[in-house]
Amino acid sequence: MIVSASEQVRAEAPSFTEVVRGRHSVRSYDKSVRLSHEEIKEILAEAALAPSSSNMQPWRFLVIETEELKAKLQPIANNQSQVSEAAAVIVVLGDREGYLKANEIYEETMKQGFMPEDIAKSFAERSIALYGSLPQERLDRIVYIDGGLVSQQLMLVARAHGYDTVPMGGYDEALLKEAFNISDRYLPVMLIALGKAAKPGRPTTRLPIEDLAFFNEMPAK
Amino acid sequence: MIVSASEQVRAEAPSFTEVVRGRHSVRSYDKSVRLSHEEIKEILAEAALAPSSSNMQPWRFLVIETEELKAKLQPIANNQSQVSEAAAVIVVLGDREGYLKANEIYEETMKQGFMPEDIAKSFAERSIALYGSLPQERLDRIVYIDGGLVSQQLMLVARAHGYDTVPMGGYDEALLKEAFNISDRYLPVMLIALGKAAKPGRPTTRLPIEDLAFFNEMPAK
Repeated sequence: MIVSASEQVRAEAPSFTEVVRGRHSVRSYDKSVRLSHEEIKEILAEAALAPSSSNMQPWRFLVIETEELKAKLQPIANNQSQVSEAAAVIVVLGDREGYLKANEIYEETMKQGFMPEDIAKSFAERSIALYGSLPQERLDRIVYIDGGLVSQQLMLVARAHGYDTVPMGGYDEALLKEAFNISDRYLPVMLIALGKAAKPGRPTTRLPIEDLAFFNEMPAK
Repeated sequence: MIVSASEQVRAEAPSFTEVVRGRHSVRSYDKSVRLSHEEIKEILAEAALAPSSSNMQPWRFLVIETEELKAKLQPIANNQSQVSEAAAVIVVLGDREGYLKANEIYEETMKQGFMPEDIAKSFAERSIALYGSLPQERLDRIVYIDGGLVSQQLMLVARAHGYDTVPMGGYDEALLKEAFNISDRYLPVMLIALGKAAKPGRPTTRLPIEDLAFFNEMPAK
């Protein structure tokens, strides 16, 4: 089959709508399809363009992709078969000490010419003082929300790359941390299976928008 | 200027990459541009295609768009000028009682033919029992993470519609809840200003992917 250049571009550049409407949670994967480290890093780097509180980017990704480690993870994740079938399972983590990278982050912002040096320095200092003084529960909440932001972008980016995903909250957190040497510095946000779909996801429904969106005042009850 | 039909389609259908790479936090808005309720509902409904824990969709959106209410919100949100300049500020809320809609959600799934009646009923019952028995802190965490998922999709969808956004975590939660009659049933996740950019967002940098992604094992420290 001859494919024209424009069709090639088309295939490489799905529309936003196609990606958002085409994303469904997929639980059955083609076990023969693996992703290279380069491609996984591309997907994660694009996911990490998501915004975060003060741009602290507290997300970290533990990519589990060997057969041995996926087999180790499966019983920890309610024995869900996608854990071993998917090309990789990404453990999305929130780094509770992520804000300590503020100097590094703002130094780069300054180097790129996006911010004068004095402002960058003052932003970095203020961020470290602010996040360092927050009660742990408040800091953890920020890390979980930022973890949600990056996870959604990750699932969409994967779909744009021609892959599918399923987010999983059903796992034993203590066993996960023990099995993969994840210290208390990191909060597991979710697991995301990533791979080539073998079967399409089961379609789901959504609540009517009238149940979700309120204009200017909350509903009576 | 004559615009061909394909150019029109093109303008209406930005590529996924354009949207993801074109999204930046915008803090300066064209005050003359307002969005209709219909368009805001379209954006929110597309955002709500995001996945959530057991598809419980615990997100709710309080859309603040009158001049009076934006003026009321601004001092509560650190006096950030985008609050009054933007067309609307969306208070993303997590409904701690969202799982009580499980019957409604699974009934619709059954009606659409996506699930047999007995399975739908059993899923709904199990969801209500499961979420109802979780410790409050665990339930809240799920609601925050789901709130992050929908917020990221919201910001991208808005961009695909030709608008810009900025997520805001800097606000007084107690004052916000009091000013807008938000009961303890709801957890504020973040504020998102939505509107037409007057000035582009300040570019930001991201940490190198090597700092964020780990393959198969956590880094030594």
